[in-house]
Amino acid sequence: MELIKNHAGRLVPDEVNGVKSIPFMGVNGYKPTGTKIAKSVRSCVDFPLDGNKVVSSLKEALVNSGIKDGMTISTHHHLRNGDILTNYLFDIISELGIKGIRWFPSASFPCHSHLIPYLDDGTIHHIEGSMNGPLGRYTTEGNMSGMGVLRSHGGRYQSIQDGEVEIDIAVIAAPTADPFGNANGVNGPSACGPLGFALADSEYAHKVIVVTDNLVPFPCYPWHIQGNNVDYVVKIDSLGDASKIVSGTTEVTKSPDRLLIAQYVADFIEKAGILKDGFSFQAGAGGTNLAFALYLKEKMIKQGIKARFIRGGSTKYLVQMLEEGLTDYILDGQTFDLEGVRSMRENPGHINTSPFTSYNFHGKGNFASIIDAVVLGATEVDVNFNANVVSHSDGYLLHGIGGWQNCLYSKCTILAIPSFRDRIPVIVDEVTTLCGPGELVDVIVTERGIAINPLRTDLLEATAGSGLPIRTILEIQAEVNNICGGKPAKPRVDKTKPVAVIKWVDGTILDTVFKVIPQK
Amino acid sequence: MELIKNHAGRLVPDEVNGVKSIPFMGVNGYKPTGTKIAKSVRSCVDFPLDGNKVVSSLKEALVNSGIKDGMTISTHHHLRNGDILTNYLFDIISELGIKGIRWFPSASFPCHSHLIPYLDDGTIHHIEGSMNGPLGRYTTEGNMSGMGVLRSHGGRYQSIQDGEVEIDIAVIAAPTADPFGNANGVNGPSACGPLGFALADSEYAHKVIVVTDNLVPFPCYPWHIQGNNVDYVVKIDSLGDASKIVSGTTEVTKSPDRLLIAQYVADFIEKAGILKDGFSFQAGAGGTNLAFALYLKEKMIKQGIKARFIRGGSTKYLVQMLEEGLTDYILDGQTFDLEGVRSMRENPGHINTSPFTSYNFHGKGNFASIIDAVVLGATEVDVNFNANVVSHSDGYLLHGIGGWQNCLYSKCTILAIPSFRDRIPVIVDEVTTLCGPGELVDVIVTERGIAINPLRTDLLEATAGSGLPIRTILEIQAEVNNICGGKPAKPRVDKTKPVAVIKWVDGTILDTVFKVIPQK
Repeated sequence: MELIKNHAGRLVPDEVNGVKSIPFMGVNGYKPTGTKIAKSVRSCVDFPLDGNKVVSSLKEALVNSGIKDGMTISTHHHLRNGDILTNYLFDIISELGIKGIRWFPSASFPCHSHLIPYLDDGTIHHIEGSMNGPLGRYTTEGNMSGMGVLRSHGGRYQSIQDGEVEIDIAVIAAPTADPFGNANGVNGPSACGPLGFALADSEYAHKVIVVTDNLVPFPCYPWHIQGNNVDYVVKIDSLGDASKIVSGTTEVTKSPDRLLIAQYVADFIEKAGILKDGFSFQAGAGGTNLAFALYLKEKMIKQGIKARFIRGGSTKYLVQMLEEGLTDYILDGQTFDLEGVRSMRENPGHINTSPFTSYNFHGKGNFASIIDAVVLGATEVDVNFNANVVSHSDGYLLHGIGGWQNCLYSKCTILAIPSFRDRIPVIVDEVTTLCGPGELVDVIVTERGIAINPLRTDLLEATAGSGLPIRTILEIQAEVNNICGGKPAKPRVDKTKPVAVIKWVDGTILDTVFKVIPQK
Repeated sequence: MELIKNHAGRLVPDEVNGVKSIPFMGVNGYKPTGTKIAKSVRSCVDFPLDGNKVVSSLKEALVNSGIKDGMTISTHHHLRNGDILTNYLFDIISELGIKGIRWFPSASFPCHSHLIPYLDDGTIHHIEGSMNGPLGRYTTEGNMSGMGVLRSHGGRYQSIQDGEVEIDIAVIAAPTADPFGNANGVNGPSACGPLGFALADSEYAHKVIVVTDNLVPFPCYPWHIQGNNVDYVVKIDSLGDASKIVSGTTEVTKSPDRLLIAQYVADFIEKAGILKDGFSFQAGAGGTNLAFALYLKEKMIKQGIKARFIRGGSTKYLVQMLEEGLTDYILDGQTFDLEGVRSMRENPGHINTSPFTSYNFHGKGNFASIIDAVVLGATEVDVNFNANVVSHSDGYLLHGIGGWQNCLYSKCTILAIPSFRDRIPVIVDEVTTLCGPGELVDVIVTERGIAINPLRTDLLEATAGSGLPIRTILEIQAEVNNICGGKPAKPRVDKTKPVAVIKWVDGTILDTVFKVIPQK
């Protein structure tokens, strides 16, 4: 393994976990030439005619699926920090004495720190998937046997579809399922909303196991996961802790600085001419983003403007907009609170989407680039508008990419960020980890002003004389550095020891996370 | 090309249109070993970022798709006998001077007799797909350059998925679509219900063109066809004649004989113990089947029984059962009347299904075998319960297979047929064309009695002493032959000239249609 400089000037390994890798070639620079993975043709002859695929335990399903050392096992993260199933799954795998598993979750959460002993003892060789919190820390400190691979939601779909990652066994937590394997996330005690993060797994894994705590008679409808792709169904007592799967309620920020940022974002969207009948936007579930959505809502009501669609992750605030007729549709990939789940169950205009639909870059287009404006966060941005969303300035990998990279393709990508956190400036000379190339980041909104990417002369012109606090990014950076007493310290990392890589949406390697050298 | 005897004892060609074929190996006898077709990986780089794939004409879309001689072009038949688009499509292809097209419709109808000149002049080399009426007659008389290939709905999905048929360009009539290519069949002036027959085409064709007469802003929802699979969108004035796409209303038979058959079927389902809470059934849209559904409905109301699901094709009669709470769901692959279309648009329990979901035999199970009872028709049945659904006793190929073969896998398959038609007995010594192996046909219901397949000792026992007119098939045959003045004449065919083949659900060749020698 050697480190080479990619198109973005970042050092990346030419080989990841023994497989030759393709370095980032620039936004839209890489053109795939191969074919999608060709899965074995299966036959109804090998499946029960009465459609009953239920087996007595997850262990039995794993054994029937031929589990063995070195396999790739996938899970989804719709149960978020309430997921019990994944920990239970690896308890069984450990009990079976299986080693060297590549765990391929759509993301991992603090609850999965339960798996650290299995990383230590070799049950799990490495993780490919976003690592939030403890597992990220574990990885950054160089404890994982293999190299972590972080992908966006769309990149994960792409990697499966293209055969870059072959899943041997997909274990799909299903809040409701029938014996045939049809499954959804909107009903049952562990309801989580959609199940889109498991769609690719169900379509392309060699064996697919659906695990549910709410088995209903055929047909389970809606079928977010189609039973025609499922090998085994398992009933267990509980998939997870409902209170941690979705929050009972999501709340708007109360911080004056964050509220100011939210107001600026809404004002920008208005003044730039984006706010008009039939427009579309996406806002996440963070406190600032929720506040932004409320400010925008006020403007929409005042001006009699209706959106054609809003992209989730949904919350009660977006649901209210749908139910009040302020948008025709919510196109939703995950629901963050109980109201989101209820709405997806009840409102025909609250539509289940998947990473295939929304984000897969290796398709014939996707939804992400159709959206008029998207408001995202970041841990760091640099003076060239490059952004980081996975690591902090101390070098630690603590967050996943999610749909963030995919969303950068929107018609106007806005990063709404405080100018500093814990007295550490957020605007830096060079991001610790490059997740989003600057040419796709259009606007940075802080409580100290709005910086527009010089590439977007159209936005600069549209907002000239608007009264918005438009400044250059260098001006804002200088002011913040002054307040914080200088630039953030460079992280202390071992540049010969890559511990994880960041993939771009096309499967090429955008950047590397290096081993952090603990402070003495 | 040689003719060989397959497992059913039928003469079939060892090669069809230049490709080696696999003869039928018995029900469940063939196990596929290959992989699904591997399609080229596409990239968003090659598609408009704003999601607008609209081009100015179908001709432009075809030229952009690289249309050339010898290609395979697919269409669906949800517009039934009201389809204008397909004829228009081939007018363009002819105008472009393209020759030797393999036309791969999900079915063809009398309106497509417009295409006979294109078969004559070599624009179309041959048809793979059900041929209803004039094109069937044309084929049976030996006029088509290539050999016809008839598949069930499930077999069509299987053939595409398995790469047996590679579609170069799919042209999908879409009653509603958006510029990205999302499309459905439930809205717009040419609304036809679902679009499931085009699902495989959209997933696996090299190029996919969506043609609509009702272009709406993104997102078109529901999206029966996903824009992520679509290359071009074309807006035209009209897809078809709405009055022939769906009937304004479907009507129950008034024939006393047919009503008696329908009553026997309903009685049989009751007496055999199939009619119970949570049961399921499928009935088509023919007059007898509709009458059966009404008789069954009476019994359900009287006994307080609710079905878990009913399989469509749907009609107003099934919609009434759904809306009156007599079933939880209608699982529907096509809607036969306006009420069916309305219900699919409005009722959350009226569910869009596809040949993948319902019928594909090369999946991990399908819905067809889960159904408790299915009531089908046939043109002929023989004394071994083998059945024919495509040709008449004169040898003419005049009907498609539809989902008929796939439905044979239900837990109880009932053929509801008059014992003779036009003074020609329907029960014969040997069917003219074998479409359904006798071991899958459980019960034959005629106005002269009910014959149960001797293999189904359970059904014989369950109905013994029930008062139902249970007879042997030979008894019924003898009686009918007596009335009609003997057995039907053997068709006059040239057994050296196969003109079409009948595929089994697994892609093997079940039987052959031979050229008819016209009567002097």
